[in-house]
Amino acid sequence: MARERKATAKDTVSGDPGDGRGTATVAHIGNHRKLGDALLRRVVIEGVTPEVDEGRFPAKATLGEDLIVEADIFTDGTDMISADLMYRRVTDAGWTAIPLEPLVNDRWRARFPVDDLGVYEYTIEAWIDPFLTWRRDLQKWLDARQKLPVEFQIGAALVQAAAGRASGRDGVALHKAAERLASGDTQAALVRVALKLELLELMREYADRTYSTRYEREVPVQVDPAEARFSTWYEMFPRSLWSVPAVRTRRAATAGDRPDPTSASPQARFADVEARLPYVAKMGFDVLYLPPVHPIGRAHRKGPDNSPAAKPGDPGSPWAIGSEEGGHKAVDPALGTLEDFRRLVTIARDEYSIEVALDIAYQCSPAHPYVREHPEWFRHRPDGSIRHAENPPKKYEDIYPFDFQTEDWRALWQEMKSIVDFWIEQGVRIFRIDNPHTKPFAFWEWMLGEIRREHPKVIFLAEAFTRPRVMYRLAKLGFTQSYTYFAWRNHKAELTDYLMELTSPPVRDFFRPNFWPNTPDILTESLQNGGRPSFITRLILAATLSSSYGIYGPVFELMEHQPREPGSEEYFHSEKYEVKRWEVGPEGGLHEVIAIVNRTRHENRALQGNRGLRFHSVDNPQIIAYSKCSDDLSNIVLVVVNLDHQYTQSGWLEVALDGWGLGQDEPYQLHDLLTDAHYTWRGPRNYVSLDPNVMPAHIFVVRHRGDGPEAPR
Amino acid sequence: MARERKATAKDTVSGDPGDGRGTATVAHIGNHRKLGDALLRRVVIEGVTPEVDEGRFPAKATLGEDLIVEADIFTDGTDMISADLMYRRVTDAGWTAIPLEPLVNDRWRARFPVDDLGVYEYTIEAWIDPFLTWRRDLQKWLDARQKLPVEFQIGAALVQAAAGRASGRDGVALHKAAERLASGDTQAALVRVALKLELLELMREYADRTYSTRYEREVPVQVDPAEARFSTWYEMFPRSLWSVPAVRTRRAATAGDRPDPTSASPQARFADVEARLPYVAKMGFDVLYLPPVHPIGRAHRKGPDNSPAAKPGDPGSPWAIGSEEGGHKAVDPALGTLEDFRRLVTIARDEYSIEVALDIAYQCSPAHPYVREHPEWFRHRPDGSIRHAENPPKKYEDIYPFDFQTEDWRALWQEMKSIVDFWIEQGVRIFRIDNPHTKPFAFWEWMLGEIRREHPKVIFLAEAFTRPRVMYRLAKLGFTQSYTYFAWRNHKAELTDYLMELTSPPVRDFFRPNFWPNTPDILTESLQNGGRPSFITRLILAATLSSSYGIYGPVFELMEHQPREPGSEEYFHSEKYEVKRWEVGPEGGLHEVIAIVNRTRHENRALQGNRGLRFHSVDNPQIIAYSKCSDDLSNIVLVVVNLDHQYTQSGWLEVALDGWGLGQDEPYQLHDLLTDAHYTWRGPRNYVSLDPNVMPAHIFVVRHRGDGPEAPR
Repeated sequence: MARERKATAKDTVSGDPGDGRGTATVAHIGNHRKLGDALLRRVVIEGVTPEVDEGRFPAKATLGEDLIVEADIFTDGTDMISADLMYRRVTDAGWTAIPLEPLVNDRWRARFPVDDLGVYEYTIEAWIDPFLTWRRDLQKWLDARQKLPVEFQIGAALVQAAAGRASGRDGVALHKAAERLASGDTQAALVRVALKLELLELMREYADRTYSTRYEREVPVQVDPAEARFSTWYEMFPRSLWSVPAVRTRRAATAGDRPDPTSASPQARFADVEARLPYVAKMGFDVLYLPPVHPIGRAHRKGPDNSPAAKPGDPGSPWAIGSEEGGHKAVDPALGTLEDFRRLVTIARDEYSIEVALDIAYQCSPAHPYVREHPEWFRHRPDGSIRHAENPPKKYEDIYPFDFQTEDWRALWQEMKSIVDFWIEQGVRIFRIDNPHTKPFAFWEWMLGEIRREHPKVIFLAEAFTRPRVMYRLAKLGFTQSYTYFAWRNHKAELTDYLMELTSPPVRDFFRPNFWPNTPDILTESLQNGGRPSFITRLILAATLSSSYGIYGPVFELMEHQPREPGSEEYFHSEKYEVKRWEVGPEGGLHEVIAIVNRTRHENRALQGNRGLRFHSVDNPQIIAYSKCSDDLSNIVLVVVNLDHQYTQSGWLEVALDGWGLGQDEPYQLHDLLTDAHYTWRGPRNYVSLDPNVMPAHIFVVRHRGDGPEAPR
Repeated sequence: MARERKATAKDTVSGDPGDGRGTATVAHIGNHRKLGDALLRRVVIEGVTPEVDEGRFPAKATLGEDLIVEADIFTDGTDMISADLMYRRVTDAGWTAIPLEPLVNDRWRARFPVDDLGVYEYTIEAWIDPFLTWRRDLQKWLDARQKLPVEFQIGAALVQAAAGRASGRDGVALHKAAERLASGDTQAALVRVALKLELLELMREYADRTYSTRYEREVPVQVDPAEARFSTWYEMFPRSLWSVPAVRTRRAATAGDRPDPTSASPQARFADVEARLPYVAKMGFDVLYLPPVHPIGRAHRKGPDNSPAAKPGDPGSPWAIGSEEGGHKAVDPALGTLEDFRRLVTIARDEYSIEVALDIAYQCSPAHPYVREHPEWFRHRPDGSIRHAENPPKKYEDIYPFDFQTEDWRALWQEMKSIVDFWIEQGVRIFRIDNPHTKPFAFWEWMLGEIRREHPKVIFLAEAFTRPRVMYRLAKLGFTQSYTYFAWRNHKAELTDYLMELTSPPVRDFFRPNFWPNTPDILTESLQNGGRPSFITRLILAATLSSSYGIYGPVFELMEHQPREPGSEEYFHSEKYEVKRWEVGPEGGLHEVIAIVNRTRHENRALQGNRGLRFHSVDNPQIIAYSKCSDDLSNIVLVVVNLDHQYTQSGWLEVALDGWGLGQDEPYQLHDLLTDAHYTWRGPRNYVSLDPNVMPAHIFVVRHRGDGPEAPR
């Protein structure tokens, strides 16, 4: 009948099962086969994690962390199930299979190490296991002290069938076991044969998988370097002038002691940045991120505080890229030469274990060579002029956006990619991408995919402060890390909700947050008004809630907090538009607290990922408490933060001890890394009190009796 | 290179975009096309609800409630999007298109009425809308008082292009508008043309959809009768003897007044059940569910309290189906004839608007005719005997389960379906299916699909008290309603969490809960110990949290609460194994409260679905508060329940007024339907206090000034 077309969803089993009422047709025979197959292939596999948009995008993993796969695996009735996780590098021919273990409520889990950068894939196979079922029931009958002669006959038949699937020594062993089960020996003797572990293992190996269920997809997983998961960023403008304190390091006698040029110098150069490396390294950062280092356009150049008319000598914004001196593949002569830049990259990596990260901003100043050479790469107005950037009612006359949909898009896209290639050749491995949400999704998927295939170590941070769906899409398309809304999440409920979203599936499987308390564009109201406690609080939240975080310095450690005007998040006399002179002295600033916090991150594996995050209840809305654990629970860090920047707050903290593998009455030691104080607690309920003007937070390393010798100190 | 195979996920855009470096291959050309298409087809559609397992199963809807479709629809950049929802009955050739409206954060919504039982499908189409974008920007420029000669040229070109796609009067109108926009008239005049609503509508109608994004699936939706969503069940054993109070109804002079047989009668019959209909109808039930009515086997018959040896005269369990007198298509002669049964069904429906629901239990007593006629439909032991049901270490010698995987499964399945067909022919439209989780998933999908195609009004309630994944799977496979864990959810957090799960996607889109405070198998600890307050509380929770609920009576309204033994959930002297004599008098029982609660359900649309459920905060863990609203907010019911069965509890209730469309300071009236008291509240914070020994709950109908004349009384 007409309704039959698609009367139920696709793949639905339907039609006459064949009662001979004369309705059999070709379609019905097809349905018989499908029905019969669905009847025999009874195991359902669903709810598989990690998986992103049904496998449309790869899930993300990193070296140094096992991939944990979970799935709901179940069937009708009470039969037992066995299940294998199968995984491989996409370049491998064969699969590696490991058993999944049941948790509760039909949830199963397995984990495997990822040893190689690039793409893995995994899938799941599960089957009804009659031997496991028989063995379970046998044990229940025995517990109920039943006599079971018939049961052993049933078991013997199962083992005999497996013997037929096996060969060699295994076949002989199974055959023998079957014979013994059928032998009519005493129940005690038969039970010993039936429950032997070796038999269980052989029966699994030679299980009948004819009607196993194979998960419908081979799920792709992108494996990135460990730095994709755990990184500590420091942003600075290389051109500003610093007075750097003398720091005792290996290089203290050379670059470390060299002061920046005198105030007579118009600005600092790459060579001067070298002198700041000991300071940055001592604070514990491993990424030094520089805003664009290219020649800056002169036409419509912005003056101090983004004023539309620059005076002679005003340096302009580094994001107005391109002048007669070159474009995206050139360095601003005022900063030095390309060789100076390469030298900075090399010294930072080799002597300070710091990667220099570059900013990729796909846009041009009107004087950029591209504008002259490729006018077809830009949008034009009806009068023939090139359209500058605008976001009505704002106009940005100093910026020409590319038209990524130009007729000549292939050449443009290739050129955009070649910019990244160029800087990779100069030694850069980490890129911060400016405003990716204003360029086509398709471009990013192509470009990031190409680069990653050729250079799997390269990391891209997406600077997309836009709507959530767009930020998530960019992460799926291939960005390694992403900026977040952290800067505007201040209250306990806001922080908790946001972190729960970021660390739960599906988001945690494709989006890696990078938390920034400030950036050159973001001086939050909290930092403007909260004083030193606010800076310390936001630092600690960023550094312990997210395994990747960064600060824009030295503004941050100097606690600069004056906005351009009330209500603005722009800095007063922003470094974006002028050369600053910073007194980065050893006194008064936050560099020591920063160093402690970053050392804590480096010494505690729990803080090097976001998987083990868990919030704990405190009966005071101004105090937030959370812990992070390493997968094996050998490293536990508990953080308690007073969110009130003015007053002491106290409350009862309820530690969720079960997540730490601790009994309700077991004592445990806490070592506060900020104050070096030690405490011993017992049980979940403990009193906490924090004075923001002394130290607004605890960062406790938790130790208990169960800790092995590898427990971190 | 080798890594390239699947180096990113399926459908990934990759490959050389064609810079002429000589790497072009057939594969690359394919990629070009894909890249170019992805570049132009820029809109992303995802997060579509309702959708079940990527369309593998239909989402559920009912007559009388619009289908509400939502999706995340977005693109890169700042271009505006337009989107259509397209829907049809699967039997229709063409689609009906209605616009989706943006909510916040790229979420879009549309709703459409479903007027027909059966399967609908819908999909979404969305496209970049340059005219909308231009119009928005124009308005922003105007707000900023800019002069915009060039903008009108751009707009004219857009309108002219649309004119080319239109014809007839619309084409002329568009052509004229384009000419005027290009005319160089005064800005005021041009603005009037540009912002005219008629132009907006025409531009939408003739939008360029060449590169629209079509959602990848046509999502199936199963439309069931309204009773699938809203039903009120009463379960009774027809054989037990009742003293029914005289109830004034249309039939009071006839069946209504006829008492059950005297105590000398061994049991009641269908004709006696007729006499109880006025009582059941007066309480407001619309489904009368009877346990199996078939002949009961004699072999291994169970005696009182499930004792293994029945005495002569013991009636046995109705679930031990089949004897020499017939099987699943026969009625127990002790209950009457098939004609008596049909008469009961007809009278119930025609005179009391009550549907009689039957219990389908696919299992046999050893004396069932199937056992003799089709031994191949049962499992056998190695000694040739048929295997009785067992759940080690328990054995059920009076029950033979069918072997749904028998070689002869086609004939067995067809026969199982024919049982349902048979009872549909006798007038039954509602079936409660016993233990569906112990039969194959494939059977249910086939059987329910076949029946539903032929009889789209038929409703199936799944009695699967098993693990969550299995219960959900059965609902996806086609069960209309499902039993739940409600009976064991007592505390505020338990109830809140469970209801949030049931009423959020994806569960709400395939699983329709039917809440039962008690069943013949379930006398909860709460009812055993909580006294009258517990019965009233559980009744009100069931009846107001879930739009379908039921009770097993008259046990419930008589507040029977003695368990078989301490710790058991079985009733003492359970009606499952013996004929009871119930004194269903008008005094003391709960029938009046039940009648009020059910009348409230019938008079308030808000309680006839679960979509508008929302919990409200109360600062006392013993008080739970929630409201339900009709989609248009014209009907609001607020329920406040004291979960403590002993003591008065009080607290501050924080009403989430925004969900009710009420301002923070607006007054609103509450009418308590349980006590007939009236209150006026203003603002979210209100004090509540409930003495369980007076009335443990409020059921408020909320009215406010915004209420129209159709507001329910």
